[in-house]
Amino acid sequence: MRLFYDIISDKRNGIKLSKTDIEYFLDSYISGEVKDYQMSAMLMAIFFNGLDSEELSVWASKMLNSGDKASFPEIKAPIIDKHSTGGVGDKISIPLAPILASLGFFVPMISGRGLGHTGGTLDKLESIPGFNVNIDFETFKKQVQQMKVSLIGQTPEIAPLDKKLYALRDVTATVESIPLIASSIMSKKLAEGINGLILDVKVGNGAFMKTFKDAKLLAQTMMSIGEKMGTKVCVVFSNMNEPLGYTVGNSLEIMESIKLLKGEYIKQVSELVEIMAVRMLLEFNMATNEEQAKKMIKEKIESGEALEKFKEIVKFQGGEVESIEDFSKLPLAKFEEKIVATKTGYISKIDALSMGKALVQLGGGRIRKEDEVDPGVGFILNKKVGEKIEKGELLYTIFYNDETKLKNAKQYLKNCFEIVNNKDFEQEKLILGQM
Amino acid sequence: MRLFYDIISDKRNGIKLSKTDIEYFLDSYISGEVKDYQMSAMLMAIFFNGLDSEELSVWASKMLNSGDKASFPEIKAPIIDKHSTGGVGDKISIPLAPILASLGFFVPMISGRGLGHTGGTLDKLESIPGFNVNIDFETFKKQVQQMKVSLIGQTPEIAPLDKKLYALRDVTATVESIPLIASSIMSKKLAEGINGLILDVKVGNGAFMKTFKDAKLLAQTMMSIGEKMGTKVCVVFSNMNEPLGYTVGNSLEIMESIKLLKGEYIKQVSELVEIMAVRMLLEFNMATNEEQAKKMIKEKIESGEALEKFKEIVKFQGGEVESIEDFSKLPLAKFEEKIVATKTGYISKIDALSMGKALVQLGGGRIRKEDEVDPGVGFILNKKVGEKIEKGELLYTIFYNDETKLKNAKQYLKNCFEIVNNKDFEQEKLILGQM
Repeated sequence: MRLFYDIISDKRNGIKLSKTDIEYFLDSYISGEVKDYQMSAMLMAIFFNGLDSEELSVWASKMLNSGDKASFPEIKAPIIDKHSTGGVGDKISIPLAPILASLGFFVPMISGRGLGHTGGTLDKLESIPGFNVNIDFETFKKQVQQMKVSLIGQTPEIAPLDKKLYALRDVTATVESIPLIASSIMSKKLAEGINGLILDVKVGNGAFMKTFKDAKLLAQTMMSIGEKMGTKVCVVFSNMNEPLGYTVGNSLEIMESIKLLKGEYIKQVSELVEIMAVRMLLEFNMATNEEQAKKMIKEKIESGEALEKFKEIVKFQGGEVESIEDFSKLPLAKFEEKIVATKTGYISKIDALSMGKALVQLGGGRIRKEDEVDPGVGFILNKKVGEKIEKGELLYTIFYNDETKLKNAKQYLKNCFEIVNNKDFEQEKLILGQM
Repeated sequence: MRLFYDIISDKRNGIKLSKTDIEYFLDSYISGEVKDYQMSAMLMAIFFNGLDSEELSVWASKMLNSGDKASFPEIKAPIIDKHSTGGVGDKISIPLAPILASLGFFVPMISGRGLGHTGGTLDKLESIPGFNVNIDFETFKKQVQQMKVSLIGQTPEIAPLDKKLYALRDVTATVESIPLIASSIMSKKLAEGINGLILDVKVGNGAFMKTFKDAKLLAQTMMSIGEKMGTKVCVVFSNMNEPLGYTVGNSLEIMESIKLLKGEYIKQVSELVEIMAVRMLLEFNMATNEEQAKKMIKEKIESGEALEKFKEIVKFQGGEVESIEDFSKLPLAKFEEKIVATKTGYISKIDALSMGKALVQLGGGRIRKEDEVDPGVGFILNKKVGEKIEKGELLYTIFYNDETKLKNAKQYLKNCFEIVNNKDFEQEKLILGQM
C-alpha cells in the first residue's frame, strides 16, 4: 500500500486519487492509522483542489458504508426526504414532512441542529414539550414503517465516519468546502434508505452560499453523488436574503408551522412547501400535472390529514400533543418589546444574516455546538420586504428573557431593517430556479 | 484573541496574517492549545497560499526564539556558516568548514542527516570511527570559541518549535513548501549566532528544487528572512543533475573530502569549495579580489593548515584521527563490483536522483528517519559527464555488503548512465549563478 504522505501529496498536487487510495486512506483513518493531523492536512488539500465526481462518489460511499443503512424493501411507495442547506426562519421541513406523508410518501427524515446564525429542525421540534428527537435506529425504522414519517436526529449508527470527519473539519477551517459539504449531507441522507431527495439550496446573505454560482455548484455536486448511488436528487434554489416567513426563533417557528398545517396561508412558507411537494408528486408520477398536484396538497391540508399526521408524529416521539392545539403550552419568552417604524415608506430590506445573529444573541441559537438553546426567544415580523408601513406602525416584536442579551441582540438589529420612501427597488423572487 | 478557526481560515482564504495572529497561533501551538490537527491544516493552507516576507519574518523569528541562541560578542572576526539544500555526493561542508576556519572565519556549523535520495553531513562525519555529532550546546559554543569551528547536529536547545513543526510536516505532506523550508533552515542557522550565511542552492533532478525558478524563489525567501534579521545571506546555485565529484556514499565521501584537504584537485568538489570560500572572503573584505582570495585558499590547503584544522575537529569530537591518514581505518563495504562501459563513446548523463536512490537501496541512505545507515557502501565513479570512455573500460565501482540490496540498487542503476557516440550534447555548467 502507498504511504499516507504520498496520498496526501497527490491530492495537494492536484493528482486524482484512485478508488484504492481513497478507500485505504479512509479505512486507515477509521482504524486510527491515519492520524487526525494527517486527515486535516488532506481535508485542507481537498478544500483547495476539490474532489471530482468519481473521487467524490468513492468518498461519500465510504462515509455511508461506515455505518448502518435503513432499508425498506417491503415499501412500494416512494421513500423520500428533503434537505435544506440552512437559513434564517427556515421551518419548511416541519410542515412539509407530514404533508408528504399524508400524500402517500414515506419520509424517514433525519435532521440537524442550528449552528451560528442558521436554525436547525431538531431545535425547533424540541420546543414542543417532551418531543424526543433522539430515537434509536431500530425504533426509527419501525416508526417509518408504521406512520410513514419520522423526525429524528442523527443516530450513532449513521455514517460514523462523517461524524468523526465533521468534528475535525469544525476545528480546522475545512468546513467550507463544497465536495466535503456535499458528501457529508449525502452520506447521511442516503443512509435513510430513500429513493428520492429534494434539496432546498438557499442563496443569499443569510445562507451558506452567498452566490447563485456557488449554490449551483453545491447542487450539482450533490446531484452527482445521488446519481452514482441511484437516488434521484431534485433541487429548488430559494432566496435567503430575508428571513423566511414571519417568525424567527424555535417555538415561534413551530407555531407558524402548525398554523400552516391548520390551513393558514403564510407568505413564502406556504409557497415553498407547495413547490417542494409539487415537485416530488410530479417526479414520482403521483400527479399528472402541477395543477393536480397543488389540488392534492390543498386537500391534505384542508381535510386536516396533514395536521393529524403531525400530531401522530408528536405523540409517537413523546411530545405533548395538546400544545399543537393550545399554543400557551409551547414555550414563550417572558418579555416582549414592540418595535415600530420610524418613518413611513416601503420595507426594502430585512437582513437575514443580522436577524439570525440577533437570535443567537438572545439565546435562541448556538455559537458553539455545546451551547444550550432558549426555545422561547425570537422575533415575529409584522411586515415583510416590499410591504408598505406607516410611521409608528408595528414593524416587529422581540421576545426575550434577559435584558443584557436583548441589548446585545439590538446591535445586530439596528441595521437589519431598511424603509425607503418609494417602491422603486426590485422585489426579489423567492424561488431562484430548479434543477 | 481570535478563534484558531478564523486564523486558519484567513490563511486559507489568502488573507494576510497579522504579527499578533501568527505569534498567538504559534505560542498556542507550543502550549498545546492549538492541536497538531489544527497546525497541519494551517501548514497545508500555507503550502497553497504562502507567507509573504512580513509574515515569514514573524514566523521564522518565533521559531528562532523558541529556543536558545548562541552569541559570541567577544569574537570580532566574521562568524559564518554554509547550508546546502541537499544533493547526491554533496560533501562540500566537510572540506569547506576547516578551510574557512583556517582562513580566520568562525564556523559554528550545525548540519542535518540524509533523507531519501539526498545525503547528510552528519551521516558522513559519523563514518569516522568515534566521531560524535551529538555535542551539547554549551560544549559546542566552547568548541567554536576554542578552535573556530564545530560540526554538530541540531541540539534540543535550538529552535524546538521548528523540530516540532518539522516532525508534523514530515507526516502531513507539507514539507515541500518554500516559505516553510526557508523559515525552518533560517531559524536553525540564525540560532548559531552567525553574521553571514552562504547557501548552496542545488538545482536539478537530484535536488529538491528541480527548476532554476523554484531555486531562485527559495533563495530569495531565505535572503529576505536573513535581511529582516540582520544576517547577510549569499547564494550560489549549483547543478545537481549529476552527482557531485567522484564518490557517493558516506565513508567514500569522507575519503574524497580528506583527499581535497590533502591537496588533490577534485573536479566539481574543489571548484565549488573554492567558489564558496572566495565569496565569503570577498563579502567580509578579507580579500581584495578573487585572485587574492583563491591564492589564500590554495595556501591554506598546501600548507596543511586546513587538514590540521579538520584533524583538530575530529579529535575534539571524539573521532579516530589516525583514520584521516590511514583510510583502511575508515569503514568500507566487504564486496565490490566493477561496472565497465558496454560501448565506446562519451558519457552524456549520470543521473543523480537514480544514484541517490540506489545508495538508499544499498543501505547507505534512509527511507525513514529511524533507519540505520551503512557507512561503507556506495559508488566510486571512474568517469564524469563529458568524458570519453572505451568499451570495457571501468565506468564505476559499487561497494556493497548484501547481495539482495545490490540487486535492488541495480534497478536504479540500470538507467543511470548514458553513453553516446558523439560529443554533441551540451556540457552543463556546475555553477548556475550567484545572488
